[in-house]
Amino acid sequence: MNGAQAVIRTLVEGGVDVCFANPGTSEMHFVAALDDVPEMRAVLTLFEGVATGAADGYARMTGTPAATLLHLGPGLGNGIANLHNARRARTPLVNVVGDHALTHKRLDAPLESDIDALAGTVSGWVRRSLTTSDVGADTADAVAAAARGQVATLVLPADVSWSDGGASAAVPARRPAPQVPAAVVAEVAEVLGGSTVLFLGGDAVLEPGLRAAAQVAAGTGTRLLSQRSPARMQRGAGLPDVLKLPYPPEGARKQLDGVEHLVLVGAAEPVAFFGYPGMDGRLVPEGCTVHVLAAPGEDGTAALQALAELAAPDAAPQVAQARRPELPTGDLDIKALAEVVGALLPERAIVVDEALTSGYFLPMATVGSPAHDWLTLTGGAIGQGMPVATGAAVACPDRPVVSLQADGSAMYTIQALWTQAREGLDVTTVICDNGAYAILASELENVGAAGGGARAGKLLDLGGPALDFVALATGMGVPATRATTADELADQFRSALAEPGPHLIDAVLPRG
Amino acid sequence: MNGAQAVIRTLVEGGVDVCFANPGTSEMHFVAALDDVPEMRAVLTLFEGVATGAADGYARMTGTPAATLLHLGPGLGNGIANLHNARRARTPLVNVVGDHALTHKRLDAPLESDIDALAGTVSGWVRRSLTTSDVGADTADAVAAAARGQVATLVLPADVSWSDGGASAAVPARRPAPQVPAAVVAEVAEVLGGSTVLFLGGDAVLEPGLRAAAQVAAGTGTRLLSQRSPARMQRGAGLPDVLKLPYPPEGARKQLDGVEHLVLVGAAEPVAFFGYPGMDGRLVPEGCTVHVLAAPGEDGTAALQALAELAAPDAAPQVAQARRPELPTGDLDIKALAEVVGALLPERAIVVDEALTSGYFLPMATVGSPAHDWLTLTGGAIGQGMPVATGAAVACPDRPVVSLQADGSAMYTIQALWTQAREGLDVTTVICDNGAYAILASELENVGAAGGGARAGKLLDLGGPALDFVALATGMGVPATRATTADELADQFRSALAEPGPHLIDAVLPRG
Repeated sequence: MNGAQAVIRTLVEGGVDVCFANPGTSEMHFVAALDDVPEMRAVLTLFEGVATGAADGYARMTGTPAATLLHLGPGLGNGIANLHNARRARTPLVNVVGDHALTHKRLDAPLESDIDALAGTVSGWVRRSLTTSDVGADTADAVAAAARGQVATLVLPADVSWSDGGASAAVPARRPAPQVPAAVVAEVAEVLGGSTVLFLGGDAVLEPGLRAAAQVAAGTGTRLLSQRSPARMQRGAGLPDVLKLPYPPEGARKQLDGVEHLVLVGAAEPVAFFGYPGMDGRLVPEGCTVHVLAAPGEDGTAALQALAELAAPDAAPQVAQARRPELPTGDLDIKALAEVVGALLPERAIVVDEALTSGYFLPMATVGSPAHDWLTLTGGAIGQGMPVATGAAVACPDRPVVSLQADGSAMYTIQALWTQAREGLDVTTVICDNGAYAILASELENVGAAGGGARAGKLLDLGGPALDFVALATGMGVPATRATTADELADQFRSALAEPGPHLIDAVLPRG
Repeated sequence: MNGAQAVIRTLVEGGVDVCFANPGTSEMHFVAALDDVPEMRAVLTLFEGVATGAADGYARMTGTPAATLLHLGPGLGNGIANLHNARRARTPLVNVVGDHALTHKRLDAPLESDIDALAGTVSGWVRRSLTTSDVGADTADAVAAAARGQVATLVLPADVSWSDGGASAAVPARRPAPQVPAAVVAEVAEVLGGSTVLFLGGDAVLEPGLRAAAQVAAGTGTRLLSQRSPARMQRGAGLPDVLKLPYPPEGARKQLDGVEHLVLVGAAEPVAFFGYPGMDGRLVPEGCTVHVLAAPGEDGTAALQALAELAAPDAAPQVAQARRPELPTGDLDIKALAEVVGALLPERAIVVDEALTSGYFLPMATVGSPAHDWLTLTGGAIGQGMPVATGAAVACPDRPVVSLQADGSAMYTIQALWTQAREGLDVTTVICDNGAYAILASELENVGAAGGGARAGKLLDLGGPALDFVALATGMGVPATRATTADELADQFRSALAEPGPHLIDAVLPRG
C-alpha cells in the first residue's frame, strides 16, 4: 500500500473514520486512497475553517477524533481560528496537512511556507512524516496524541503519500483519564459549604459530573458555577441547572463575591475575557483560596462522585423541572427568540450557541426544555457555530441540531451551509439578525472608548447593504425563510424541525 | 494622544491612509481613534481573509502599503492565506494585530495564542509594541519595513492602545530600490542572443521594464518570458506581449527547452508549482546557466534600460497591436468567455485573474485589448481574487476592475462582495462556474493517482447542491445575473461595465 493508504487505514483502524476535507494537489493521493479504504467517510467543505470547526463539533459529541485534510500552510491557516477554539475545548482532533514532496521543499515553490510553525500555535502534537515506511506509525501516534484531548497535526509530504511501502499501524488503546488522589478529594471535602463554589468545566458539566456536583451542593450548601464557555454541557429537564459564569466582568465578579473557596473541577481559574482600563483581569476575590479538585483532562466526574460519596452520601441533587416558556406572540426580540427556542426545542437536541449578545435569555428559556447538549464558543474566535453544528450533525445523525448564530459571526464561515445541504444534515440554523456587531458596540463603551463617533460606529454596523441570509442560504442549497415576528419565528422553527435536512431562519431582531 | 491615536497618526503621516479592518474588543480604541484622525479611511470587511487580500490588491496598484486591523491570533489566522500571497507578491503591507493588554497576557484568557509565531510565517518584520511612548516609533518602523516589499506586523496590546502618552513618529523617506552594478549588466550583455531568455518578474513586468526588455529582444534575438504569477503585469495594445511561463511542468519545460542562458530579472528561478512522481521540480534545462540581472527588490527596470542601452541602443521594441476578438455567439465555454472579456475590456481596466483552468484562453484574447493591469494569484493560496479586486478598486476609484474568478476559489472569500457593495466599488466579477474543482481533477491524473473512484471524484465536485452565485451576490447587496450563452455573457458584461458599482455575472460553463 502507498503512504496515503497507510494513513487512512491506520486512522480507520484507530477509530477515526470521518475526515472533513479541503484537498489540493498535494493531497490527491489521499483523495484517491479514499476509494481503497471505503470505511473512511470524507466530507467536503468549501473552506478550511468549516473543516476544522466540523471536526471539533464531531469530537465534542462522540469523544472520538475526526480527521481533517488540509492543503499546505495556507489551508492550515484558513483552519487556524477553529483549531484555536478546538484547542480551548480540549477536543481530540487529527489534522492531516499535505505538503510538498520532500524533494520539492528546497525549491521554495509558491505554496512553500512554515507549516510547522503555524501548526505549533494550535497543536499539542506536531510531526512531519519523513518516510512512507513510518507513516502508519506516525499516524497511530497522532491518533494517540489527539486522544489525550488535543489537536495533533501530521504533516504529510506528497511523496511520502504516493510512494509504496506503507503499512498501517495499531493505535494503542486509549488510556482512561488520570484519577484524582483520594487525599485531594478529602481536602476539598473540608472546605465545602455556603462560601464555597465548585467551578465546573470539561467532563464535570456532562450529566454524571453534574449530578454528583448537585448532590454535593444539596448536601453541603456549596454553590455551583460552570465555566463561561464549556465545550459541551448537558442540561434541561431532569438535569441539574448550573449557572454559567457571566461574560461581563462585573457580572462574573458579582457571582464570585464573598466566595472564600473556589474549587476548580475540569476548569481553569476564571479570568476576564478581555482586559479593561483600570481593571484587574483576575476574577477570583482577594482572600479567596483556589483549590484544584480535578485539573482539565483528569477524571473530574469520578472526583465529584467520590466527593459526593464522602461529603453528601444521602443528599438528592436538585434538578430542573420539565417546563417550557409559553410561545410568544407579537414583536420579535431576543427574549421572544429565546422563548420560541425553549418552547419548541425537540427531544435530544444538540444546541450550538454562537448567539453572543442575542443569546442572553436562552439559558432561562431552555432550562426546562427536554434534556439537551449545549455546545459553546470555547476560544472566542467567532465563526465556530455553523461548522461545529455541521460536525455535530455528522456525529449524531439521529439527533436534531439547533444552531443559534449571531449574524456577524455567521459570515465568517457561512460556507458551512453548503456542506449541511450536501450531506443532508438535520441542522436548523437561526440567524440572530440585528444588523450589527452588537457585542462590539457595548465593548466600545466597556473599554471606555465610546466617543459616539460616526466613523467608529460604521465599523460596527452590518447594514448598508443589509445581509440577506435567506438568499445566502438558498444560494448554498439550504431552504430558508425570514421571520419578523415571534409568531413567524415559531411557525418557521416548528416547520424546520419537523422536516429532515438543513434549514435556516433569518430572525430579524431590533437593530443592534 | 493615546497609543491608538499615535499609531493611526503615524500611519497617515507615513502615507498609509487606508485600513482594511475586522476589529474586535482589543481593537476598540483603534476604532474610536478613527474619529480623531479622519485622514484614515477604514474599510470594514466581514472576514479577515478579505482584509488582508484587499490590502494586497491596494498596494499592488499604488505601491503604497495599506494597513489591516486584525483581532488577535485567530483574526490573523483568518488572514494568513492572503498574507502568504502578499508575501509572494512582495507587497508592502502593514498588519496591525490587536492583542490582550500586557497586564492580561499571563492570565491565558480564551483568545490567548502565539500571535508572534503566526505572524512570523508571513511577515518580514514583526514587533510587539510594549509601551505607549514607543508605539509611534514602532509604527514608523513598521511602515518603513513594509516599504521594503514585505508584510510588517505590529502587535498592538490593548493597554498600549488605550494609555495616554503616545506621539506620532516620522516615517523615514522611502529608499529607492538598490541599483544593479554596471558590471553585472555588462556580463549579461555578453550572453544575449537566440538561446537566451530574459525571465521577467516584479517591476520588470511593468511598462518601462517591459519596453526595455522588448528592446533588448528586438535588437539581440533574446527571448522574453515572464514568471507564471506576477503580482502586477502591464499588457495590452501598445505594450510588449510577454508569454507567461505555463503552469503545467511539461508546458514550462517546452518553453525552456534549448535555452543556454536564463537571465533572471526581478524573478526567482522558475520551478514546478508542485512535485510529481518521478519528476524533477527544477524546470531549468541541464547545462543552462542561470544569471541574475536583478534580484527581486533591486531596480530591475533600470537594469533592463541599461542593458538595452548597451546591447540594443537602436532597436525598437515590438508591441501588441490594438485588436479585439469578435464577440462570440452561441455556447458559452472558456474560449467564448475569454473572447467576451477581450472584446469588451474597457480602457485602463484592472484585471484580477483567479480563473485558474477557466482562464486558459484569456491571455491571447486580451493581448490586443486596451492597455490594462493584470493581477494574479502569486502564492497559490486560492481565495485571493475577490479580495485583491476589492483592494485594487479602493486604490483606483477611477478605473474599472474586472475580477475573473473560479467558482471553487470564489467560495473561500465570498464575503468580499459585501465590502464591494458597501463601498460602491466598480468591480465586475465573472464567476467561471464549472461546478467543480476542475484543476484538481486534472491534478489527480497528473500525480498518477487517478483511479476513477467515485469517492475521490466526489471531493472534486461542487454540484449537489449547485452553488447559486446570483443568490449569494444579491444576498450581499451586489446585483447579479446568470449567463448561459456567449451572447448573454456579452450583454451582461457590457451592462455591468456601463453601470458604476459592483456587479456579478455567473458564467455557466460546461461542467468541469
